[in-house]
This record gives sequence, structure tokens and C-alpha cells, in this order.
Amino acid sequence: MRRILASALLGVVVTAPGLRADTHRFVPTQFYTTYSFAHPPALRIKPGDRVITETVDAGGANRLGQTLTQGPNPQTGPFFIEGAEPGDVLVVRIEKIETNRTTAYSGSLLAPYSVDPASIAARQDREPKRVTWQIDRAAGVARLDDPDVRPALTLPLRPMLGCVGVAPARKEAITTPTPGAFGGNMDYAGLTAGVTVMLPVNEPGALLFIGDGHARQGEGEVVGTGLETSMDVEFTVDLIKKTPASWPRMDTDTHLMVLGSARPLLQALQHATSEMLRWLMADYGFSERGASAFMGQALEYDIANVVDPNFTVVAKVPKVLLPRR
Amino acid sequence: MRRILASALLGVVVTAPGLRADTHRFVPTQFYTTYSFAHPPALRIKPGDRVITETVDAGGANRLGQTLTQGPNPQTGPFFIEGAEPGDVLVVRIEKIETNRTTAYSGSLLAPYSVDPASIAARQDREPKRVTWQIDRAAGVARLDDPDVRPALTLPLRPMLGCVGVAPARKEAITTPTPGAFGGNMDYAGLTAGVTVMLPVNEPGALLFIGDGHARQGEGEVVGTGLETSMDVEFTVDLIKKTPASWPRMDTDTHLMVLGSARPLLQALQHATSEMLRWLMADYGFSERGASAFMGQALEYDIANVVDPNFTVVAKVPKVLLPRR
Amino acid sequence: MRRILASALLGVVVTAPGLRADTHRFVPTQFYTTYSFAHPPALRIKPGDRVITETVDAGGANRLGQTLTQGPNPQTGPFFIEGAEPGDVLVVRIEKIETNRTTAYSGSLLAPYSVDPASIAARQDREPKRVTWQIDRAAGVARLDDPDVRPALTLPLRPMLGCVGVAPARKEAITTPTPGAFGGNMDYAGLTAGVTVMLPVNEPGALLFIGDGHARQGEGEVVGTGLETSMDVEFTVDLIKKTPASWPRMDTDTHLMVLGSARPLLQALQHATSEMLRWLMADYGFSERGASAFMGQALEYDIANVVDPNFTVVAKVPKVLLPRR
Amino acid sequence: MRRILASALLGVVVTAPGLRADTHRFVPTQFYTTYSFAHPPALRIKPGDRVITETVDAGGANRLGQTLTQGPNPQTGPFFIEGAEPGDVLVVRIEKIETNRTTAYSGSLLAPYSVDPASIAARQDREPKRVTWQIDRAAGVARLDDPDVRPALTLPLRPMLGCVGVAPARKEAITTPTPGAFGGNMDYAGLTAGVTVMLPVNEPGALLFIGDGHARQGEGEVVGTGLETSMDVEFTVDLIKKTPASWPRMDTDTHLMVLGSARPLLQALQHATSEMLRWLMADYGFSERGASAFMGQALEYDIANVVDPNFTVVAKVPKVLLPRR
Repeated sequence: MRRILASALLGVVVTAPGLRADTHRFVPTQFYTTYSFAHPPALRIKPGDRVITETVDAGGANRLGQTLTQGPNPQTGPFFIEGAEPGDVLVVRIEKIETNRTTAYSGSLLAPYSVDPASIAARQDREPKRVTWQIDRAAGVARLDDPDVRPALTLPLRPMLGCVGVAPARKEAITTPTPGAFGGNMDYAGLTAGVTVMLPVNEPGALLFIGDGHARQGEGEVVGTGLETSMDVEFTVDLIKKTPASWPRMDTDTHLMVLGSARPLLQALQHATSEMLRWLMADYGFSERGASAFMGQALEYDIANVVDPNFTVVAKVPKVLLPRR
Repeated sequence: MRRILASALLGVVVTAPGLRADTHRFVPTQFYTTYSFAHPPALRIKPGDRVITETVDAGGANRLGQTLTQGPNPQTGPFFIEGAEPGDVLVVRIEKIETNRTTAYSGSLLAPYSVDPASIAARQDREPKRVTWQIDRAAGVARLDDPDVRPALTLPLRPMLGCVGVAPARKEAITTPTPGAFGGNMDYAGLTAGVTVMLPVNEPGALLFIGDGHARQGEGEVVGTGLETSMDVEFTVDLIKKTPASWPRMDTDTHLMVLGSARPLLQALQHATSEMLRWLMADYGFSERGASAFMGQALEYDIANVVDPNFTVVAKVPKVLLPRR
Repeated sequence: MRRILASALLGVVVTAPGLRADTHRFVPTQFYTTYSFAHPPALRIKPGDRVITETVDAGGANRLGQTLTQGPNPQTGPFFIEGAEPGDVLVVRIEKIETNRTTAYSGSLLAPYSVDPASIAARQDREPKRVTWQIDRAAGVARLDDPDVRPALTLPLRPMLGCVGVAPARKEAITTPTPGAFGGNMDYAGLTAGVTVMLPVNEPGALLFIGDGHARQGEGEVVGTGLETSMDVEFTVDLIKKTPASWPRMDTDTHLMVLGSARPLLQALQHATSEMLRWLMADYGFSERGASAFMGQALEYDIANVVDPNFTVVAKVPKVLLPRR
Repeated sequence: MRRILASALLGVVVTAPGLRADTHRFVPTQFYTTYSFAHPPALRIKPGDRVITETVDAGGANRLGQTLTQGPNPQTGPFFIEGAEPGDVLVVRIEKIETNRTTAYSGSLLAPYSVDPASIAARQDREPKRVTWQIDRAAGVARLDDPDVRPALTLPLRPMLGCVGVAPARKEAITTPTPGAFGGNMDYAGLTAGVTVMLPVNEPGALLFIGDGHARQGEGEVVGTGLETSMDVEFTVDLIKKTPASWPRMDTDTHLMVLGSARPLLQALQHATSEMLRWLMADYGFSERGASAFMGQALEYDIANVVDPNFTVVAKVPKVLLPRR
């Protein structure tokens, strides 16, 4: 095996005899806490390429529990996709997300805006204590056995990425707790291996960032965290040239999805719903009234998070309900 | 068969040789468009009793398409449950909801608050036209083939009740488009046959109302309607005495649910989330921190409606994830 | 002086030699905690008539501190205005609001939705303690000198009515903490003597209710109360026949105002702003674009309350800025 | 007069015999559309210094109507204040804001979120047309006489700056339509000559930006603009060292103010209210309960804007009501 140092600052690109030319092993050494056009590309890749890499946890700790960098949500990347230009859509297929250590942490109090203010005022124990879960990959579960948290909990692993984003539009630099039209910290429990994420490109090369792996997360992320841990991640990229898209979209085995992010919560839903209308009209042969009548009876929603600076709502259309064409 | 007229005003109670004493066939002739303590009971029943009845559609039309009464959402009932007192929980098990005619109607434009205001301003065709769906019970689908709605649509039936409610607290009379702590027009697509609905009792006898059947509905009810139609409905009732509950709850084969209703949307979610916390602590052995840590990684949400005077969010816990006790 | 008992249940109508035929002295003995068409008129009056009456405080105590009735916000009335029909506007000119005892009470903690949730969690003293203010009418101030409330406070009196409302539309019965299109508990500090309130009529006779006097109140009513006290009130009534209005309006020496009530806060503002547009177009000679351009540069807002079941926002146009006609 | 070119890129510093050493005449030639730490200082000044400068209008046009740069809201600056460090408060006293040309433009339709969605759907003329106002400084008014806008309008000038901001925290770069904790596009009609603005410092030198002058603006900025024009501006700066502040504050002849910015509107109010509580406790001798009880009866609010990416609400305390100390 031969190692080539791409950059002492940005990461290590590993090559090996068995590795195809379109596959990149990238070990990050530099991480970012803003989504921004201003960060130098860590790796340049082409449409069709595969990247094998890893993410540190939301606090900056890696597979060994070593804190490599400061949080929140340090990002691996940015990956510069050759040929990506503003007006294109970047397609990121998530091939693998796997926990790579034996612990995760989470919050243990319901976050401020997720509950009635009166229930915050009535809370007896207000200490925002972190708790540590044990990850048992063989059994496929995470376990929490903490004296303050009764009863003990065992929950199936469902690894996901809290953050997949590109450089924002209009030269904004946005901190990594924040989701938006550029993706970012959407904290959607459905962003697992096997899904395809589509993001509007705002800058040449798109500048793809990933991070904030969760071994599992409930909808809403109501304790302010998932099961925060480091991850091994593989993804492939592609481009859809010159296609208007205003919000991140996902394509899964079962659903078309749009992820809208904003405050208030209703506005996140409005963005997702409006964009789904446009998508069905542009790509699935619906008239405006046809898409509307269909969505009225076929739409589903997930509430990804209600704890980040913007909340995220996912509008979903089950593919099985789409008219045959 | 022998018919006994319970009241010329309120409905017809049908008895028959094969009918058990705890089973009531009730054909409504009087309907209500407010939830209120002030309406006289249409039928008095006991915990354990079964009611076989029917509902007109949201516009007041019955199985024959005859308009019996004015909308919106005319209610069948109220049913007075013997022994129900303020502080109890009324348990309503939905045994059957079946469409009983061959048409349903729906809206065909996305409702005001469900989309970005800019997309309303950009709309070319703003006519709020109703469309008529054909219900094919043999095939288990509803079909829409309307020249303005392209392409033609075929969607599986999933009959539900938009409205299940009791007399509100504090002598309020609330119009039937509105959901709240008393239930009412929650417009939740998951309120189907097989579920158990639990409602806080505010008045002696609880005064149960049902109505607003939908042959199917998408989450959010974003065109302002489901597939509005008349229904044959069967339910059984029971009481849980002296149990505090602030919001409607549901128990299904797979989930515990709480339905919070309010504006803004986040507040509906806050009510549902706060009440789920209380429920898990009261009945499932969780400490406050335990329930919080569990909900953070296990909670699911549905968005029932974003079109009614109050919006409804459903907080859900998958039973399979509950700790064994 | 001769007293005539109008009704042992509803109140006492006092007549005296010096009293004009169009002037009614009414001493309430029955109070209501819902706005509803179902309450029997306490007094029937005609357009042009004057009523001299009184209100108990939000907790039901009168000028002597005697608790006559239960709260919240017990209402004096309803007054049936002869000739008022749905589609009319009831005009209520507030001639006098005067505190009639020496104490008022208020909350002393910022209410749940008025502050960041984090600041609720950080609060050390969470006891929702009421404090008692001394009313000094001679000096025109209220004083609070309570060991828990530092420093001592002295604030000018500015008496107002929290509640002015009519029977709601569609046979709703709404509790008296709630404001809406029917008026009700708008808790607007600007609703003082000298203003004219205009309310859409929903029921024959309109059924006017008043109550919830505050010796003073800040905008937002952020401790959940004003300086709650009993009041002597005088008002005159009139009708504007067959005039569409969707929300309460006010006409003062300096401003035209619309009071929109809803949650979320933005929706209250939307109602008030939309209704002001309609008003300017209907009565002040503006085109739609003219009213819009004018409002963009001339509008003012007050935030009446952010603590009631609906929040209230007041859209205001300074009369001095209206174009001459 | 002698001109010294500070930088061909950033602006022109003018000196003259009569100019004091602590007074800077700065003519900007470079403008910015993000608030960011990354922009090079245009001018370095000291606490106590005065700057005489100018701003282009929101579209980038100067006093001559020449478009010098692209919008939205091109900023003059950034000014680097010697000695300013994170944790300090930058004090900016606005000495002068004067319109310097004879025209201003504004929108003429009520903006999307400022009105009911139904009123957007009902609008007949949806063209988002700009209109041009004539500024008559001698008469102190702006006039609009446009055939589409009836009647003609004449409104008093009240010049203000829509934007006063510093480099945001956490290395964010935020576009200039956006207000936040760093100030920015708060669009507050009360930000006129004579006020003192206080901004939390996030970066060394603070990096002060100003722009977006309005000859006048209504509360809410409901047409999406004020009377947009170029301005002559003078300000002086000072520092309060090591003072925690979370949101912009203002000190005027009559009021203490806090400007909270967020969506939803209620959250902007929550930020402003919570920060006012902290300010009263830190600097005005109030206990928490004392500040709360006082605010409940003394607070005022302005709604600065409901059209920007964050809305801005101003919590205000009349100085005359503060307890004597």
C-alpha cells in the first residue's frame, strides 16, 4: 500500500493496488464548522467517482475517541466535483454509513422548542447532562444503562448522516448546526445508506461537505442530538446539468422526498411542499392541479428536526402511488 | 325487524332480533356543527357497548348523495356514555369505517398555509374547484379522471374519520372544522378502523361526536379535504376512570400516539411531545430523563393537518421499541 | 331614587329622576365566562343609548374586593342592541373607564411564550406569585412595594378594558381569556376611554360583553396580566348597517386601527394588515396598490398581547398621514 | 483640499484643513453584500472618532443615481475600530442621516408574509411594480404621484438606516438582506439620527458596516422596502469593554430598546424581551422579579420588519417610567 499526501492540511488520500481509478480513499485531517465557498477543496473528484472516507462525531472525536478538532459538527471535505456549476444538481448516492467505534453520546432532556414552555418551567431536574450509549454492531443495537435514565434502553442501530451540504448561495458562510437550501445539518433520520441526495449547486465544483453521523435518531431530534458517533462513509457522486432545484431532494427505494428547512416549522413544510409540487410538474407529468390533487391524498411528511437554527420538514411521495406513465 | 323511534329530532334507534343488548344501531337524523355540552344526547350507551351508525360527508350528504344537513362536518351524536365524568378518559375503539357510496369529492388546489406565499402569487389557475372521485370498493381504490387534473389518478382506499370528539372543557362550543384537546376535526389519516382513540372527558356523559369520513387522505390534508364521503361506522366505548390526560391519545397495533392541535404548527408538536412524555412516565415506567432520552431516539411524528383552524401533529412511539418490563 | 329590578339573575337597572331615557345605569349581578349567543340579554338598549355600568376584576372581585363570581375575566352583559343584525357593525364608544378601588394585582414572572425557552430553564425563582399594587387615583399612579420585587415601582394609571366583545359567529361559545374576530380578550393597552371600538355583528342584538379592566398594562401583557382591578365604565352604542368587517376596528383621535387575533403572532399581524387594506380601500378612496404603497410607508403596529390563547396585533394608520380628500 | 487615496479598491479618505484628526471623511468605492469577518477593513478608526460618509441605495445607486455596485443592500465599510475585541460592545451614535438625492423607490404590493394568504390569492393585480417617489427636502416630504397608485401620497421624511451591523459570530458570512444578533438589515424605522446603537463585538475591530438608507419607512416594512435612497451619514463610535450583550440595543432620548431578529415573529419578540430583562437586571438595579413585574406594565414593542429573512421586533422601555435611583 502506498500513501500519497494530498495536503498536510486538508487530508490524506490513500491509494492501493486494488483500488479503481474512480475510487478515492480520503482520510480527513482538516475539518470545517462553516459551509462556505471559501474553504479550499480537500479532494477533486469527477461525476461517477466513489469516495471512501470517514466523519468525526459532532464534538470532533474520531473512531478512537480522539478529539481531532472542535465542534459543532466538524465537516469532512469539501469535495470539489469537476464540472459542477451553479444551476446544476449534485447527486450524492450514500453507499455506506457504518459506525466505527463502540460508543455514542446523546442529550437526555427534551430541547427547548420541542415541548410546552410550561413543561420546561415544571421540570425538576434541569441539568443538561450527556449520556453515553454502547454500540453493539454484532447485535445491531445501541444500549444505554445510566442510573439517571430509567429504565435501561436498547434501540436498533440505524446509522445516518446529520449533515450533507454544499457551499451556500450568495457567498454566505453558514455554521454547521444549520440546515438550509444548501443541505447542511438537516438531521434527517432517513438519510441512511441506500438513499440518493440531490443538492442545488451554488458554486463551481459544488463543494460537498459531510459530517455529524448518528448511530440512530428519532424524528424531531428532540433531545438535541442523535446517537452522536464517528462513521465510515462511502458515497458516489454524479451531476444533473442545468436543472432548477430550490431545495434538497432525496430518492429512495420507496419515496421521492424534498427537505425544506426554515423557522417557523410551518415554513419548512411550505418550502418542502412547494418544491414537491414543482418536482412533480417538471419530472412526473403532472399539471399544477393534477399534482395538487395528488399531493392532497398521497403526501406524507417526516419532521426531521425541531432543534437546529432552522427546522427541517420532509415532504414525501410514495413511488407506488405515482401514476403509471 | 322492528324500529323504535328514539326521537323524531335526533335519530332513529333500530333494534332487531339478532342484535345484542349492548349493541345499538343508530341512524342519525339530526346533526351538529359545533362540539358543545349544550346538545341533547342522541343516544345513551354504557361502557362496553357497541354502536353501529353512519356519518354524512363534510357537506352533509348521505349514502344516497342526499344532502340531509348543512356543513361543515356535520356530526353524528352526541352519544352520552353512562358513568363518564370530568377527569375520566373516554376510550373509543373504531371497529369499522367503510365508505357507503360510490363518490367522494376533494379540493384540487394546495391550501393557503401549506405552500410558500410566493407560489400562491405565481399560480395561474386560482379557481378553487372541487373534483369528484369514483370509489371502487371491489378494487379497493378511488379514481379521479377529470380533464383539469392530469394525469388521471388511482389511489388505494384507506377509510378514516376526520372527526372524533367530545364536548369541550369550560362550556366552550367549538365549530366542527376545529380540532383541539377535545379531539374534533383532527383530520388524521391514521384514524382508521382498528385504532383505539382516548379522549379526556370534560362533561358528564362525555358527549361523543363523530363525522367527516374520508375514503383516503394524505398527511397534512394539503388540499383542504380528504376524499370526502359518507361512511358506515362501528365503534365500542369504554372508560378509564380518574386518569389525567390533556390531549387525545391513540393506541394502535404498532404505536402509542398523542394528537396535539394548535397554531402554530410547532405548538401542536409541543403539546403532543409534552403529553407523550407524561404518558410514558405515568404508564410505562420511565423517569423524566429516561422518557426524554428514549423519545430523542425513538419518537416519530405525523403531520395530520395544516389546513384546519388548529393544525394537528401526532407524536408516535413504536411499541416494538418500548423497553420490556 | 328608585330601583327597578330587571332580573334577579342578570343585574339591576337603576333609574333616577335626573337620568335621561337613553341612559341606563346597570349593576351586574350575573357574569359570564364565555362569549356566546346562548346567554340571555341582561339589558336591551338602542343605538344612541348610553350605559353606565361596572366590571369586576379578572378574578371576579368588585369595587369592595368582594368576590362575586368566578374568573377568568367575568363579563358584564350581554347588552342586546335593538336593530343589530348579522352583517352590521356595532359601534361602541368608550366614554369612561375608571378604577373604583385602591388595589390591583398582577403577575410577576414573564409568561411562557414571551421569552426564550432557555431563559425559562435558567430561571432561579419560578414561583408564579401574584403581587398587589396600590392605586392612588389622586396622584394618578399605581405603586408596587413588595420585598420580592426590587426596586419599588410607581407607574401612571392608564385604565383600559381587556375585554370588549360580541357573540361569536357560527354559534361558537368562546372562553373569556380568548380574543378573536368577535373581539373578546384582546388585552390592548390602547383600549381606553375616548376610543371607538367597532365589532362585526354575528347574532341578532350583537350581544355586547365587557370586562377585565386594567389600571394599566404594558404592550404584550408579558406577565400574563395587567393591573387587574374593578372599573366604573360608561359607553354609548351605535350601529353601522350592512357593512362588511372581518375584525375589530378602532377609531381614536389620532389613528385608525384594526385588531387581529390569532396564533402564531404573524397570523394576528396578517389579519390586521389585510383588514386595514380592505378598510382603506372601502372607506378612504384608496386603490389596492395605493393602499399598499401607503401602508408600506405609514403603517404602525402595536402588540397587544402575546399571552392569551390567541395573540393580538394592532395595525394602525396615523390619521395625519391620510391623504386629504 | 487634499485628497489621499486610502485604497483604490475600498474607498477614498478625504482630508481637509478644517477637519479634526478624529474626524474621517470616507467616500466608499467598494461595497459588500455579506456581513463577514473576511472583508478587509476600509478604514481604521478609534473610539471617539467621527466618520462622515455616505451610503448607496439598496440597489447600489448613489447620490447621482449612478449604479456603482450590485444590490441587495450594498454596505459601506467595514470600519475597523481599534481596540474592539470579542466580548465588547460597539457603540455607534448616529449623528446624521440625510437623503442626498431627489428620488427614492419603493414596492407597491404588500409582501407575502405580511398579509393573509387568501388575500394574496384574491389579488387582481399581482405585478410587483416599483414606484418612484420625489424627495422634497425643503418641504420635508416625499411625494408619490403614479397613475397606478391612487390617491397621490405625501408623507413626511424620516430618514433612517435599514442596515447597521458588525461581522457575525462564528465566522459566518450573512447576506445583507438579513438581520441577526450582529445587527444587519433590521429595517427599523426608529434607527434615525440621534440614536445610539450598541452591537455585540464578535471579531477584532468589530468591522462595522452601514447601508440601506430609507427616506421613510412604515413599521413592518410591509411592501418589502422603505423609500430606498442614498444618504449622507455621520456617526461616532465608542466601546464598552467586556460587557455581555446578546442582541443589538439602542438608547434614544426617550427609550431603552433591544432589537431581536428571528423567524418566527414571536421568536424575535422572545429574543428582544429576554435581552431587555437581562439589561434591566445588569444595569438598572432590577431583581429578576422586579424587572419582570415592571416590564409587564411598562414595556412597548415596535415591529421593525416582517419581510426580511429574519423578522425584527423591538422591545422598548420608556425611560420616564424607570424607577429613580
